[in-house]
Amino acid sequence: MKKYAVGIDVGGTSVKAGLFLTEGTLLAKWEITTSKGEKGRHILPDIAESVRAMLKERGIALEDVEGAGIGVPGAALADGTVNKAVNLGWDGIVPVAEILSGLLGGIKVKVGNDANVAALGEMWKGGGKGHENVVVVPLGTGIGGGVIINGQIIPGAFGAAGEIGHLKMSDTETECCGCGKRGCLEQYASATGIVRMARKRLAETDSPSALRQYEALSAKAVFDQAKAGDAVAKKLVEEFGEMLGTAFSLIACVVDPEVFVIGGGVSRAGEIIIDVVRKYYRQNAFHASRETKFALAELGNDAGIYGAVKMVL
Amino acid sequence: MKKYAVGIDVGGTSVKAGLFLTEGTLLAKWEITTSKGEKGRHILPDIAESVRAMLKERGIALEDVEGAGIGVPGAALADGTVNKAVNLGWDGIVPVAEILSGLLGGIKVKVGNDANVAALGEMWKGGGKGHENVVVVPLGTGIGGGVIINGQIIPGAFGAAGEIGHLKMSDTETECCGCGKRGCLEQYASATGIVRMARKRLAETDSPSALRQYEALSAKAVFDQAKAGDAVAKKLVEEFGEMLGTAFSLIACVVDPEVFVIGGGVSRAGEIIIDVVRKYYRQNAFHASRETKFALAELGNDAGIYGAVKMVL
Repeated sequence: MKKYAVGIDVGGTSVKAGLFLTEGTLLAKWEITTSKGEKGRHILPDIAESVRAMLKERGIALEDVEGAGIGVPGAALADGTVNKAVNLGWDGIVPVAEILSGLLGGIKVKVGNDANVAALGEMWKGGGKGHENVVVVPLGTGIGGGVIINGQIIPGAFGAAGEIGHLKMSDTETECCGCGKRGCLEQYASATGIVRMARKRLAETDSPSALRQYEALSAKAVFDQAKAGDAVAKKLVEEFGEMLGTAFSLIACVVDPEVFVIGGGVSRAGEIIIDVVRKYYRQNAFHASRETKFALAELGNDAGIYGAVKMVL
Repeated sequence: MKKYAVGIDVGGTSVKAGLFLTEGTLLAKWEITTSKGEKGRHILPDIAESVRAMLKERGIALEDVEGAGIGVPGAALADGTVNKAVNLGWDGIVPVAEILSGLLGGIKVKVGNDANVAALGEMWKGGGKGHENVVVVPLGTGIGGGVIINGQIIPGAFGAAGEIGHLKMSDTETECCGCGKRGCLEQYASATGIVRMARKRLAETDSPSALRQYEALSAKAVFDQAKAGDAVAKKLVEEFGEMLGTAFSLIACVVDPEVFVIGGGVSRAGEIIIDVVRKYYRQNAFHASRETKFALAELGNDAGIYGAVKMVL
């Protein structure tokens, strides 16, 4: 294997990139703005230019680069094309691997969905380190997810593997999820979902709670106040744990991973998350899978570049 | 690759075996009794003897055999050992691959869990033919399952991948599942579960139904009477479809397969199963996965020998 490789994580606002040694060390990382104008046609040329500039700065020839991995917010197919990355302005099928490889002297290029690629990064160098069968669940505005089996991303027949935010967890929900269904995990256990449930519970009773003092309620506030002993916040954390722990027990009946890695903004609350989710996971899991490990994500925003480069190693 | 290979499916009562051409044709199949006495120590020698006899009968040398695959009712680990196959009398860790290979002149031996191996067979030559990402769900006394990704069995960290009979589908169930939990899919959609629900619904009302005439109610009776227009039976089939279709929508959020293959005794009811399950699957599935295919299993009791031999090809 050659000495260097590149990992690229394309977001709707900025592109993150990293130059790596193929043994896994991150040598340099940088960001450029995502130029979404003209249906995003400049995104890949901009990336190639910035990669060439970084290599030149370090005196590295393209011949010494094993390849580049790239994560994009859209459905990445096995042939290296991406179908409708609407956040990038791409409205048709874009042959990402072919284009980027052409712009980088023909080096090997692998393409993945950004959430799946970030999951691969967490498996490799983050919360799932040392394991090859990992489910990564980022709790952010929504809930994405990535399923890694034998060290490989499972994309799914329709690019929907790891869409665990849309596991149906309730038959009685009256509000709609962004996906159009009702009762999705995301409606309860995402950052947005936690706030929604907090508002609902606060409106249902007059119980005193420090949460009533917040002008802008947040998932962080709920966990902070639970740690401080607020009864309403503690109950909300239990409800969150029951929802997510039960969802994980469903996932374990399908792929039975070695470890669940919890990431995203919500995971910054720390060990309280692991404790409450594990508690309800164990109550609901099939007996054989009761000892599945839990870990917090460790790479934050760098998970994407780590996972991207891992695809070419 | 050599010309021949052997597939073996070990059950608690009998061992089924098949001699195959490595291009996939089944040349001969046979059965021997499973000798469970003396902690099942004769099972592997009996198998080896019957394989040697079949090869001799056909004038095939062991040198022309690529290998043997064997499915066993227990947790098969990656190193070819099996942990506690209680139905075979094996109460510890048995190095199945090593023992059987030793008894067959050192040929390659691969070991898998019987349900997973049967799923692989259905992917290869049965209802999932032409696909590599398949979830196979046999509806029998219980509900097993096998998850095949990129043509490979997913065993799971604790051997519990594909345990979809234990997906928790209800919070309000009062009866216990065999696993000790309440509300498992198996309690509603297995042959036993269908009969349980039929008895329950018949006891709840006085509605006339042909099902009341059966001395021994069966899942087959429920589907037969639904086809004949019996209102109670039709409602039971809808309830079954909603439970299984919803469970499949959960599975799709995790691995998003190309096709669900429904097998086991219940699947003999035919297309009515596919129709009702697909209906509720589509109502509950994440939008990207709404067009997942459904098929009935095709290999019946031969799925195990097909899947077993596939492991060595």
